[in-house]
Amino acid sequence: MNQTLELMHRHHSVRSYLEAPIPTETLDAILDAAWKGPTSINGQQVSLVVVQDPARRARIAEIAGGQPWIARAPVFVTVVMDFHKTTLAARKTGESQVIHESVEGFAVAAVDAGIALGNLMTAARSAGFGVVPIGGIRRDPQAMIDLLGLPPLTFPVAGVVIGRIDEDGTIKPRLPRQSFVHHEHYDNAALAAAIDDYDGTLARYWADIGRSDGLPWSQNTAQAYRSVYFPNVAPVARKQGFGFDQ
Amino acid sequence: MNQTLELMHRHHSVRSYLEAPIPTETLDAILDAAWKGPTSINGQQVSLVVVQDPARRARIAEIAGGQPWIARAPVFVTVVMDFHKTTLAARKTGESQVIHESVEGFAVAAVDAGIALGNLMTAARSAGFGVVPIGGIRRDPQAMIDLLGLPPLTFPVAGVVIGRIDEDGTIKPRLPRQSFVHHEHYDNAALAAAIDDYDGTLARYWADIGRSDGLPWSQNTAQAYRSVYFPNVAPVARKQGFGFDQ
Repeated sequence: MNQTLELMHRHHSVRSYLEAPIPTETLDAILDAAWKGPTSINGQQVSLVVVQDPARRARIAEIAGGQPWIARAPVFVTVVMDFHKTTLAARKTGESQVIHESVEGFAVAAVDAGIALGNLMTAARSAGFGVVPIGGIRRDPQAMIDLLGLPPLTFPVAGVVIGRIDEDGTIKPRLPRQSFVHHEHYDNAALAAAIDDYDGTLARYWADIGRSDGLPWSQNTAQAYRSVYFPNVAPVARKQGFGFDQ
Repeated sequence: MNQTLELMHRHHSVRSYLEAPIPTETLDAILDAAWKGPTSINGQQVSLVVVQDPARRARIAEIAGGQPWIARAPVFVTVVMDFHKTTLAARKTGESQVIHESVEGFAVAAVDAGIALGNLMTAARSAGFGVVPIGGIRRDPQAMIDLLGLPPLTFPVAGVVIGRIDEDGTIKPRLPRQSFVHHEHYDNAALAAAIDDYDGTLARYWADIGRSDGLPWSQNTAQAYRSVYFPNVAPVARKQGFGFDQ
């Protein structure tokens, strides 16, 4: 087992940070891990906006629904789905861009954003920092667009906090492996039992770390997903120029 | 600079593989890097389907529009957006799941799929294997759904070939860094010049590797994105139960 695999197997979120800044060279090397990542058709439909200014981080902490680790840690990186740059390519060659009006386009940019986000986390953790991915910026995507000055055909889909660890987090167990890794065919048969099993595993995990408000997975997930969760995403994405009719 | 960062900075696709199988323990360690990755609200809305059977890999090569490396390398992993497992959680708790009917839900599952895909690539490369991500399965997503036996509320969004390298690939240059990494605010001013610059960089890269059919980035991207590219994605996603109206 090499160090990279070991690091990835120990992934966990950190929500307790020191204020110490990240040296510029190190931060650049972390950002480069996302820059050098692959993108669909080499379209490079992703951008990062790095926020280090404390007042602006405090504002993002607020936008994300009150997440103080964003204000505390020195770096917040927003991962932006970006069909603005490709539009400039279209303009340069006299073509008219259509991809952003499609579910396919949204899928491509979101997957590529996910690759970039994952690379940022692995890179930062390999350099000894803690991370926590932040979907909460989608609570008010328009506020993020205004804060970061994002142009049309872009969307701030997720972010990540990076900083030096104060109190380390714990590794949360996952659903049983056989419900994640399927061989040759998707195996539906054992899923309900796997969920029952995992509800028990998580209850023990919450008890172990002293979290009395921890819910079973099925209950936590069902409560989150009985609604659209972040209902501003669709209208703001449409306002930015994304479409879903084709 | 640590080994993980160096590895990520040297990311490149490999399209020439040996047929040698991947030892089960190594493959498991690679898959675990995705399994242990983070997901939004710990919803775990992603699954993998690992295909090793040669006839089935040959079929995927066909579905993806004729990509012989899928048939040649020993392992193809499909990354599946998965709101089926969360639906079982909803059923268990008596809730009704709504998230899959929203752009927010599609964004969450696609970003998480991207994180898993990125983790698979970094993990496989750290173990000495080559990889190439495959979006081409979205050319005919229904064929993938049939082949893998995917249930409703799932979608095969991308895949990855993993195998022992025969002829190694080359590192393709990216758009200039300042068009990817922005500080505090998105900087629109220099983008057009960055694209001009990159069109020249890529022309030199194509010449260096002897690819006479290589296009400038702006032309390649504009040609791909003047259409929906994979128009079956939206109708098949809707047929699988995904919605985009909220």
